[in-house]
Amino acid sequence: MPRARPERDRRRRRAAPAPGPLGEFEIIERYFRLATAQTEVGGGDDAAIVRTSPGTELHVCVDTLVAGRHFPPQCPAAAVGHRALAVNLSDLAAMAARPRWATLALTLPQAEPHWLADFAHGFAALAREHGVDLIGGDTTAGPLTVTVTALGEAPRGTRLTRDGAQPGDTVYVSGPLGDAGAGLALIQRQGGATSPAEQHLVDRFLWPRPRLDLACVLREHGHAVIDISDGLVADAGHLAAASGVGLVLDLERLPVSAALVDCRLRESHLELALGAGDDYELCVCAPPAAKPVLTYHGLVPIGEAVAGSGVVFRRDGRPVDPPVSAGYRHF
Amino acid sequence: MPRARPERDRRRRRAAPAPGPLGEFEIIERYFRLATAQTEVGGGDDAAIVRTSPGTELHVCVDTLVAGRHFPPQCPAAAVGHRALAVNLSDLAAMAARPRWATLALTLPQAEPHWLADFAHGFAALAREHGVDLIGGDTTAGPLTVTVTALGEAPRGTRLTRDGAQPGDTVYVSGPLGDAGAGLALIQRQGGATSPAEQHLVDRFLWPRPRLDLACVLREHGHAVIDISDGLVADAGHLAAASGVGLVLDLERLPVSAALVDCRLRESHLELALGAGDDYELCVCAPPAAKPVLTYHGLVPIGEAVAGSGVVFRRDGRPVDPPVSAGYRHF
Repeated sequence: MPRARPERDRRRRRAAPAPGPLGEFEIIERYFRLATAQTEVGGGDDAAIVRTSPGTELHVCVDTLVAGRHFPPQCPAAAVGHRALAVNLSDLAAMAARPRWATLALTLPQAEPHWLADFAHGFAALAREHGVDLIGGDTTAGPLTVTVTALGEAPRGTRLTRDGAQPGDTVYVSGPLGDAGAGLALIQRQGGATSPAEQHLVDRFLWPRPRLDLACVLREHGHAVIDISDGLVADAGHLAAASGVGLVLDLERLPVSAALVDCRLRESHLELALGAGDDYELCVCAPPAAKPVLTYHGLVPIGEAVAGSGVVFRRDGRPVDPPVSAGYRHF
Repeated sequence: MPRARPERDRRRRRAAPAPGPLGEFEIIERYFRLATAQTEVGGGDDAAIVRTSPGTELHVCVDTLVAGRHFPPQCPAAAVGHRALAVNLSDLAAMAARPRWATLALTLPQAEPHWLADFAHGFAALAREHGVDLIGGDTTAGPLTVTVTALGEAPRGTRLTRDGAQPGDTVYVSGPLGDAGAGLALIQRQGGATSPAEQHLVDRFLWPRPRLDLACVLREHGHAVIDISDGLVADAGHLAAASGVGLVLDLERLPVSAALVDCRLRESHLELALGAGDDYELCVCAPPAAKPVLTYHGLVPIGEAVAGSGVVFRRDGRPVDPPVSAGYRHF
C-alpha cells in the first residue's frame, strides 16, 4: 500500500499489544469506549438511551462493508474504520440530516490489537469531526465485515428525499466523479500510487468525505438528493425513478479531476466518472432559481430534469449511449 | 434438522424461485419491502425517517449473528431470521423498552430465493408480533452474517438499566435456563431432536422469545435487569459489577425444565443452566416488596443482592463452586 497522507499517519498511532487474547469486553473497553455528551446511557448496557431533539425527525440508515468486496483486503485499518462510518454519513448527507449517533457491528477473524487500534482511530476521528456518538457495538469472530447504523436528525418538515425532482429542475453533482474508482483500480492493480496525482486518486478512495457540509444549503434549495455510491448512471437512475422524471445529462459537463484525466488506466475517465462508485458525492435536483447559491457552494450543473423517465446522456447536445450501462452490482 | 413446529411450518411458505440472479434491489423489493405505519419514509431512500413519541427516550441496540458461530449452518433460514431480530428485542426487553424500528444488514454467500423467503418470513413474523417496522437494510455478498440494530422507546424517567441493583434486592430469572444450550447441543451432535422432549429443547434454541411481555411490570418494580444471552454466570456477573453489589444465588432454586433434566447429554443440567447462553430469559433485581407481583408474573426468585461484589453460588445454604466458570467467549 502507498503511504497515507501525513495527517492520516498521525492518527494511526499504535496501541501497546495485548498480553493475551482479547475478549469482546476488553475490545469494547479498550478500543470503543462508548460515548458521551449527547447520550444518556452509553454502551455497556443492553441498549443505549438517547434523547432526541424536540421538533426533529430521526433519520436512520445502515451499510455493511465486506473485506474483498467493498474494500481491498490490504486496505489500511484506519481507512476501513473511516469508510464504515463515512458511507453511512453520506446517506445522512443525502437526506440533509445532522448525524448524531451510530452503532458498530464488527466481525473479525481474530482480535488483532494493532489492527483494532487503527480501525478505532479511523472511525473515531471521523465521528469526532461530525459530532457522532458511538452508542452501541457488537464484536464477533468471523470473516471481516463491518456494519454501521447511523442515526441523524433534521428539523420536522424539512425532509429531503430522492423523490422530489420536478421537470425543469437543474441537476448537479457536488464534486469530481471517478477519482475513487481510479484509486481503487490503482490499489488493486499496482498496490497503490506511484505519483502525487495517483496518490490523490487513492486517497479519494481510502478517505471518502461525506458531504455533510452541504446539508443547510440543500435543505433550503434542494428538491431531491441522492448520494453517488454505486456510480452516477445507477444512482441518477434511482433518483429519476423515485421522482417520476427523466434526467438529461451532458457528458462534457461532468466534473473530473486532472489526476483522473491524466492517469493511465485502461478505463477512460468517462467510464470511471459514470460507472464507478465510491466517490460519495451527491447528485442534486433543484429549481433554476437556486443556481447562483448552489454553484457558489461548489455544486456543478450537469443537466436537467424533464417530463418522462430514465436517464439520457448527451454530448454536444446530441444523445449518446454512455460508455457504461450500470453501476455496482451487489450480487 | 428436525421438523419445525406446525405453526412455524405455516410461515415458511416458499416464494417462486427467481428466473435469474437476484440483485440487491430485487432482494429488498421482493423479500424486505420496507415499512409502514409508524414510519414517515421507509426504505428505498438514503435513510428512513421516523418520528419519535414526545416524552420518550430512544433505546438503541445492535447484535450480529455469524453462521457457524451463533447458530449452526444447518439452522432453518426462518429460525435465523427470527433469531436475528429476537436477540435484539431481548436487549430492549431488558431495558423495559417498547420496540419500534429495526435495520437489517444481511451478508449472503449468494442470493438464494428459497433461503431468503424463509429468512424474511421468520424475521417478519416476529416483527409483526411486536409492532416493529423494518426501516433500513443493506444486502451484500459475503459469508453469511446478519446484523440487526433495533430501536425502541420508553417513557422518559423510567429507564431500567443493569446498574440499579441494591443490597437486599431479591434476584429473579424470568424462566427456565439451559434449554437452549441443550437444544443447540442436540442439533450439533445428532442433527436435531428424536423425541418430543428433545424437540422442546431444540425449539427453545431455534425460536427464542424475547421477554417483552414483562416490560410494564419491570418498569414498575425492577431495580436492575439484564438479558441472559451469555449464560447466567457471565450475565449475573455483569449485573453485579455494573451495580456494585454482590449476588448470592441458590443452585437448587434455578428453574430448569423437565426436558432438560431428562435429556441425555454429557453436560449436567446445572452446567447448561449456568453456563450456556441463548435462553434470552431475563435476570432481574427488585426490592422484597415486589415479590408477590413478580412471582405472579412468573419470575422465579433465585437469590439476593448483598453488599460486596461478584456472584457466589450456594447449595443448601452453603457456598459451592459453580460447575462452570464463564459464559460464552466471543474470541
